[in-house]
Amino acid sequence: MKFTIQKDRLVESVQDVLKAVSSRTTIPILTGIKIVASDDGVSFTGSDSDISIESFIPKEEGDKEIVTIEQPGSIVLQARFFSEIVKKLPMATVEIEVQNQYLTIIRSGKAEFNLNGLDADEYPHLPQIEEHHAIQIPTDLLKNLIRQTVFAVSTSETRPILTGVNWKVEQSELLCTATDSHRLALRKAKLDIPEDRSYNVVIPGKSLTELSKILDDNQELVDIVITETQVLFKAKNVLFFSRLLDGNYPDTTSLIPQDSKTEIIVNTKEFLQAIDRASLLAREGRNNVVKLSAKPAESIEISSNSPEIGKVVEAIAADQIEGEELNISFSPKYMLDALKVLEGAEIRVSFTGAMRPFLIRTPNDETIVQLILPVRTY
Amino acid sequence: MKFTIQKDRLVESVQDVLKAVSSRTTIPILTGIKIVASDDGVSFTGSDSDISIESFIPKEEGDKEIVTIEQPGSIVLQARFFSEIVKKLPMATVEIEVQNQYLTIIRSGKAEFNLNGLDADEYPHLPQIEEHHAIQIPTDLLKNLIRQTVFAVSTSETRPILTGVNWKVEQSELLCTATDSHRLALRKAKLDIPEDRSYNVVIPGKSLTELSKILDDNQELVDIVITETQVLFKAKNVLFFSRLLDGNYPDTTSLIPQDSKTEIIVNTKEFLQAIDRASLLAREGRNNVVKLSAKPAESIEISSNSPEIGKVVEAIAADQIEGEELNISFSPKYMLDALKVLEGAEIRVSFTGAMRPFLIRTPNDETIVQLILPVRTY
Repeated sequence: MKFTIQKDRLVESVQDVLKAVSSRTTIPILTGIKIVASDDGVSFTGSDSDISIESFIPKEEGDKEIVTIEQPGSIVLQARFFSEIVKKLPMATVEIEVQNQYLTIIRSGKAEFNLNGLDADEYPHLPQIEEHHAIQIPTDLLKNLIRQTVFAVSTSETRPILTGVNWKVEQSELLCTATDSHRLALRKAKLDIPEDRSYNVVIPGKSLTELSKILDDNQELVDIVITETQVLFKAKNVLFFSRLLDGNYPDTTSLIPQDSKTEIIVNTKEFLQAIDRASLLAREGRNNVVKLSAKPAESIEISSNSPEIGKVVEAIAADQIEGEELNISFSPKYMLDALKVLEGAEIRVSFTGAMRPFLIRTPNDETIVQLILPVRTY
Repeated sequence: MKFTIQKDRLVESVQDVLKAVSSRTTIPILTGIKIVASDDGVSFTGSDSDISIESFIPKEEGDKEIVTIEQPGSIVLQARFFSEIVKKLPMATVEIEVQNQYLTIIRSGKAEFNLNGLDADEYPHLPQIEEHHAIQIPTDLLKNLIRQTVFAVSTSETRPILTGVNWKVEQSELLCTATDSHRLALRKAKLDIPEDRSYNVVIPGKSLTELSKILDDNQELVDIVITETQVLFKAKNVLFFSRLLDGNYPDTTSLIPQDSKTEIIVNTKEFLQAIDRASLLAREGRNNVVKLSAKPAESIEISSNSPEIGKVVEAIAADQIEGEELNISFSPKYMLDALKVLEGAEIRVSFTGAMRPFLIRTPNDETIVQLILPVRTY
């Protein structure tokens, strides 16, 4: 194998596939990055067996030559060293050559690295996925779907299924749901596929987070292929494979209250900042809660009390307070997480009493719902 | 105590004095910040008993009113909460009022915090320092003196005296020396004081690092008052006290070779980057060294070898190679540390053989010297 490649493109591809490489793997060769040079270009692969990422650099793009292949071939190089080395190379082009016994030479300017490589034939194969049925979602929408749900997955392995996001496709609509059983995030999106195609899978939260990091912010379509055990995201020159979680995702539809007893509409930023301030003292208390008191036609008050340190209270101007008077306590972290992913200047919060889950939405937008379970303090 | 203050100035002062506050103190009141409102303005004090910082906000600056004092007084507030609270207050002004039993109200807009304070009379007094003899150094020079030496102090408590920087004043010259016994940094500066005034003290490295962080980059003079046990740095509106280290600093003058057998002059940036690249593989090896080979009238080669991973070799263009041929090994970290604080496009390295300490300097600048002990590998 021997080729010359643009350094900036090499660095970018290596950084992308590096996101799948774990140093804590039990399969030694997976601490490496597989490099395959063919007549069309060079591909890089990283994997921790849960997630696999392949990045392809074509020989040419438009009129620009990016890679010059002198001899096709393949090698596996230690990911940690290879990625740090390419970042620090002195010149704009890099020559990579495999010699005898997998010894690999990396040359750039006067710097010459010799790395001991491994046989690429020993590297596990990527999952084989047949793709007659792909879902297409624009990259920026996909990144939003992920951002607005993935933060709510469980971080505990007690119920492994809750560490993933449930993707359910029915009636040409995608429904993404994440919950850690204390709060729930739900996001819908219309899909341009036949009504009779349906899926119901759980994608690990970690996979979605890593996927989001390597996707650029643009409107190009990402092809998504879902099988029984794997999902494949195909963006421009990048393939992202993730295994799916085993098991049935709990039915969460019954959790979401259909009516409400108290409704408030407030300025998102003011509300978020008041919660943030109240959380400064909440953190210290054993309960770690802030309290919200709403008196219809009067005012909303956010407060928190930590006997040893002190207390904080703040009145919030509400655009609307309707229904019953309410005193409710909740985790400020969950509220801040939810507010941060809601778009729009105003938010609507719908309560059904101090002991029942409540909903946070943007007025007039039914595609995204955030739900939080209150904390019993009264 | 009751006063109203500009939020941005309050935040700045609190952040400055916070640098002296440690959460691991054995004196509970030192986890707090002391606030004293007088007719002239408000002062804030933080201390971990090694370092004490006082920041003063005057009532007025030029024509601008910064503080309105309604009632003088004093209080101690928990540093961690107070500093986070003031950062997150909603409006540009903040009212702070002490009520009964040290209960302190912090108001800004509609947000109101109640913090349990402590009696300011219980707060330890700052060291009393008589200041008939101050040294004056421009802030930017002082920051350079610190930056170019403090990185070389020892981080081990085996020889506590080496965790500080030796400041020696003689013949109107300040000599700052730091060493961890593997490398040494030395910086000189002319002072505008009488020739017969002399000092020889050791300032803890940590104190100098924190001092540097709170000094702005400007040319205003800092007054430095040195006593037997304390040093006081007086910048505009900030007093910075540090205890001195007990004991005698070792005499390091004999360490510095007076002649050399091999001299090289190289481009600083090229040399630094080559060392940085070589260090990528050096880290892995047990020795953690890079090797430099100089052949007079020919070339310089930087290399490193880590049998399991691979090796790297790079030729460097030298502006000058004089004297004997040389092969020497050293820690790339020490070399990078030294190169980062040297100013100028070129550096001169003077060797006296593979087993002897070598010097790194900027050509034609005798005010700064970096010394490194080589590692025996041949």
